[in-house]
Amino acid sequence: MLFHVRMDVRLPHDLDPEVRAGIVAREKEYSQQLQRAGKWPHIWRIVGEYSNFSIFDVESNDELHTLLSGLPLFSYMDIHVTPLAKHPSDIN
Amino acid sequence: MLFHVRMDVRLPHDLDPEVRAGIVAREKEYSQQLQRAGKWPHIWRIVGEYSNFSIFDVESNDELHTLLSGLPLFSYMDIHVTPLAKHPSDIN
Amino acid sequence: MLFHVRMDVRLPHDLDPEVRAGIVAREKEYSQQLQRAGKWPHIWRIVGEYSNFSIFDVESNDELHTLLSGLPLFSYMDIHVTPLAKHPSDIN
Amino acid sequence: MLFHVRMDVRLPHDLDPEVRAGIVAREKEYSQQLQRAGKWPHIWRIVGEYSNFSIFDVESNDELHTLLSGLPLFSYMDIHVTPLAKHPSDIN
Amino acid sequence: MLFHVRMDVRLPHDLDPEVRAGIVAREKEYSQQLQRAGKWPHIWRIVGEYSNFSIFDVESNDELHTLLSGLPLFSYMDIHVTPLAKHPSDIN
Amino acid sequence: MLFHVRMDVRLPHDLDPEVRAGIVAREKEYSQQLQRAGKWPHIWRIVGEYSNFSIFDVESNDELHTLLSGLPLFSYMDIHVTPLAKHPSDIN
Amino acid sequence: MLFHVRMDVRLPHDLDPEVRAGIVAREKEYSQQLQRAGKWPHIWRIVGEYSNFSIFDVESNDELHTLLSGLPLFSYMDIHVTPLAKHPSDIN
Amino acid sequence: MLFHVRMDVRLPHDLDPEVRAGIVAREKEYSQQLQRAGKWPHIWRIVGEYSNFSIFDVESNDELHTLLSGLPLFSYMDIHVTPLAKHPSDIN
Amino acid sequence: MLFHVRMDVRLPHDLDPEVRAGIVAREKEYSQQLQRAGKWPHIWRIVGEYSNFSIFDVESNDELHTLLSGLPLFSYMDIHVTPLAKHPSDIN
Amino acid sequence: MLFHVRMDVRLPHDLDPEVRAGIVAREKEYSQQLQRAGKWPHIWRIVGEYSNFSIFDVESNDELHTLLSGLPLFSYMDIHVTPLAKHPSDIN
Repeated sequence: MLFHVRMDVRLPHDLDPEVRAGIVAREKEYSQQLQRAGKWPHIWRIVGEYSNFSIFDVESNDELHTLLSGLPLFSYMDIHVTPLAKHPSDIN
Repeated sequence: MLFHVRMDVRLPHDLDPEVRAGIVAREKEYSQQLQRAGKWPHIWRIVGEYSNFSIFDVESNDELHTLLSGLPLFSYMDIHVTPLAKHPSDIN
Repeated sequence: MLFHVRMDVRLPHDLDPEVRAGIVAREKEYSQQLQRAGKWPHIWRIVGEYSNFSIFDVESNDELHTLLSGLPLFSYMDIHVTPLAKHPSDIN
Repeated sequence: MLFHVRMDVRLPHDLDPEVRAGIVAREKEYSQQLQRAGKWPHIWRIVGEYSNFSIFDVESNDELHTLLSGLPLFSYMDIHVTPLAKHPSDIN
Repeated sequence: MLFHVRMDVRLPHDLDPEVRAGIVAREKEYSQQLQRAGKWPHIWRIVGEYSNFSIFDVESNDELHTLLSGLPLFSYMDIHVTPLAKHPSDIN
Repeated sequence: MLFHVRMDVRLPHDLDPEVRAGIVAREKEYSQQLQRAGKWPHIWRIVGEYSNFSIFDVESNDELHTLLSGLPLFSYMDIHVTPLAKHPSDIN
Repeated sequence: MLFHVRMDVRLPHDLDPEVRAGIVAREKEYSQQLQRAGKWPHIWRIVGEYSNFSIFDVESNDELHTLLSGLPLFSYMDIHVTPLAKHPSDIN
Repeated sequence: MLFHVRMDVRLPHDLDPEVRAGIVAREKEYSQQLQRAGKWPHIWRIVGEYSNFSIFDVESNDELHTLLSGLPLFSYMDIHVTPLAKHPSDIN
Repeated sequence: MLFHVRMDVRLPHDLDPEVRAGIVAREKEYSQQLQRAGKWPHIWRIVGEYSNFSIFDVESNDELHTLLSGLPLFSYMDIHVTPLAKHPSDIN
Repeated sequence: MLFHVRMDVRLPHDLDPEVRAGIVAREKEYSQQLQRAGKWPHIWRIVGEYSNFSIFDVESNDELHTLLSGLPLFSYMDIHVTPLAKHPSDIN
């Protein structure tokens, strides 16, 4: 079941640089683990912004919330989720 | 080069049903032709809305505008385009 | 799996009164059928508006879109869907 | 008498972690007490957000404001209340 | 129990003038009947707009929706309702 | 001459609790003085928010600005003023 | 007493050209009469829009609403009124 | 003196196709005349929309309004103008 | 050449009171100097807000930006500029 | 390939003045280097704001994101990118 997710990162300017680097590194690892598991099939950078559009493939709403709220950057992001359905023109 | 596109269809209620059916059929054919050509790799229905999120893969901004403005539903849609870049966490 | 749905009805003023009455009657029947089937556990009128907040309980995003796009009033409504998860404070 | 409530939590990043944990724990206890008393029949997490949609069942507007302004997280939340009425299609 | 209501009238330009005059006359009569009954204690014109701010005093959300949806202008208005509580500084 | 005023209080979380209590106490006294003088005939709490809708009755725009900018909470509030006129349906 | 007014004209495309010309001519005459009477001291065109910013100088809110609702274009405009006070830096 | 202008075309769906074609042709001619005169140095299509971003180079606000309100599509467009100044980093 | 300017002052609550008083005093002096020079013919306080509507009369966009960016409060304000043209109904 | 970019600078008031001056100086140098390389053909100041409208000329979305995210002010700006296509009325 697919969901469209927009994430906008809002890191405070006075965050300690080492703390920041640590969070960002853990975020990358966490994201890549979910990508390899097939849960997060697409992630694209929005040009010019510290933001991404992503597609998640999960079993349920609860699973999606668990994955998103586990993001190391979760408390520093605005996240907006849109549920997706198969489009009648889709050839796949 | 990838672009994220949101399309919201606004067909007038008093459109002749046959005219409407004709436009919608041509739209589907046009969309599937671009999908088969690899120009329109993803199209998803937004649940509950007469709208879609799509990903286009084109050579240039001009090519994208030519494809979008050629949509049979073009004059009946609100379209918003967002350019995408590779995300540093993307494993592909 | 639960979804929160807001529906705002926008019937054109020049719609034929009989056509209008027919659509509204079919909408009620369709809604009550889904309520009895357990798919649409809650529907509340928003005070002062021709709108409702509803909760749907479905198996998948695709099922939800099928149910919503089958509403007799579908082409006369703005619909916005929000996926819900279990709240950690929920006692049920 | 039912009310629809949306709550968005905005905890400052520099809040002392112990203070934060204390507030969140008291919020949970307060919420569950109201749920058991039948005043707060539904609470759902909005997927991907530190937010909830809730339904309150109270005797009056004044009672609702007393309950909401007593929330331990009250000064850290944006709250929006919408009064609800019985929907003519509701089968209950 | 008090509610704050904003009403914005949107009469279509091509409405038959007699039909329009009839609706507006019935609206005035209906409003004054509710004012005399103590249900609609305040109504003020918003300067420069075909709009009003009103205060309603009713027993329940359901009663308020019944009164508002019975307005002869109901289908030609945008209505927004806000529930009110006693303010701690109020001397009355 | 009547004006509709919405006030939204935004007290910073790190404000000293005693300073805060002092401001809030002076605000209450100031408000009640204006209410007794007939300048501030109505004040209602917006349910669930640290906000109010008020009605002011003043001689001029300048008098209203003097009263509002003298509020002890003035620099901690978003204030929006709407001028009111007599409504043609008003029975008073 | 001064008020800032923004007016945005929305004339329907299918309005009869003679009717339109008549309304616009009466609007100009009405406006110039109020300007000569000192009630409407300033009117400026917003560059690129069928809109104006105006300053009105009236005795009361009621007088302002009477003047604005008497505009021949009143039912074809969005009007927004902002009350003005003397600025402490104003040298006049 | 430079101005940034955004134009969004909103042609009604029921406009007579010949009338439409005539307006669009005159718009093009009018635009190219101003481009050749150096008044309209840049015009770009916004990808996916019936809209443009333009730069105008004029002597005054009045000249700009005269040029824009003379556009054959003027009454079918939303136009928003932003005045521009030399940027301190500009190398030209 | 006239421009309409809205300025909203956002002074941080933790600004040193003496620093604040100094900036505000220099702002007043700067404003009155421009008023006396005929560059800033009107300034009005927006009732209930720490904001003003102003009219500037300058030779060019560049001159306007120089004047505005020289305001002692410049980095503490949101400023929005709208270019004005002569209105066809203006009697002056 | 052309892109329209709006940049709004939001420097925190408590930023160390030397740090600030250093960033702003590096930003200018970086911008002028890209201008000289033909990548950033236009930059205009928005009158009254710490903002600019720019045109970038790049090979791809990825190149544009690399250039923008390398801006010394990047983490202090809101940036919005709009892809541009050739306009059919453009004479160049």
